Amino acid sequence: MHDNFKIFLKYFIDFNEEELGKIAACFKPRSVKKNDVLLAQGEVCNKFYYISRGCIRTAFITKEGHEKTRYVMCEPSIGTALTSFISQKPSFEFIDTLEDTELLVISYEDFYKLNAEMINWKVFYQRILEMAYSFQNKKIEGLVTLSAKQRYELVLKETPFLVQRLSNKILASYIDVSQETLSRLKSR
Amino acid sequence: MHDNFKIFLKYFIDFNEEELGKIAACFKPRSVKKNDVLLAQGEVCNKFYYISRGCIRTAFITKEGHEKTRYVMCEPSIGTALTSFISQKPSFEFIDTLEDTELLVISYEDFYKLNAEMINWKVFYQRILEMAYSFQNKKIEGLVTLSAKQRYELVLKETPFLVQRLSNKILASYIDVSQETLSRLKSR
Repeated sequence: MHDNFKIFLKYFIDFNEEELGKIAACFKPRSVKKNDVLLAQGEVCNKFYYISRGCIRTAFITKEGHEKTRYVMCEPSIGTALTSFISQKPSFEFIDTLEDTELLVISYEDFYKLNAEMINWKVFYQRILEMAYSFQNKKIEGLVTLSAKQRYELVLKETPFLVQRLSNKILASYIDVSQETLSRLKSR
Repeated sequence: MHDNFKIFLKYFIDFNEEELGKIAACFKPRSVKKNDVLLAQGEVCNKFYYISRGCIRTAFITKEGHEKTRYVMCEPSIGTALTSFISQKPSFEFIDTLEDTELLVISYEDFYKLNAEMINWKVFYQRILEMAYSFQNKKIEGLVTLSAKQRYELVLKETPFLVQRLSNKILASYIDVSQETLSRLKSR
């Protein structure tokens, strides 16, 4: 599992072998069944995840009681409930598994220790933050400028595997449409 | 103006004098009148701003034609239309001035040159990205979990100067309420 992780890391930054060894040593394997909660709403997020196989998401509940899926991570990818992880304050979002999932997990302490000690980790984390920020803003942009149909088509074009792998309920909450609307869009 | 900027920078990171000199040399002063457009929607954002005096904002137009104010920067602060700045693709947001404003401006090229050459700039930029990401997520959280009244009270508590300085139109579009609702909330 760590070998795939190293390939993933090198895709972003040209880490040397010593750096890769140091990073890998901080990430501990963990297997989690489908529908398991990795972080509950209100808990402080002190873990950062590499998804080696499977699928996890960050989601939240609106004041009207609707569940919204903010971000979905399928293998290979990396992420967490970043706002709580950064601030070490209770998380507004929860994280759960959408499939049986194999993870590599780094603690908050080890993450920021790498960040303090390794310039290339700083560069890597900067890239992650830039991507996370841009994804977030693009999502808002989509919600305020695109129709439900256009948002569905965008997911179908850019991340078609989500349409394959996610249940209708989760996909609808990710695109921010009702399940009925999603079924109609899919049947076209 | 550069002296205030240096104090602002040192508030975040313990830059040494040589670093501060190098950074300040990259930031050029610019005076802009109220209601001027610094970046138009659809333009690529290749400037990053330090606001020395005055007030600027990032905003966008929804598909229903409503103007939404995403982020407001009053002195002393730093920012830009970050998604476009990072990607160097056309911006969904525009930037305009809400008051007569004194800026220090760094180009995209100089910004990432500092980032490549100066570790402390990487640390600074990481802090900015973390704050920008967290602000963005907190804003979404507020929109989906708080009532209009609660969002107004939060701004009043955390950034009361915005209630003082912004016009009703801009403040309403920032809190995401109608101008009528805002007037009602203010009169209580």
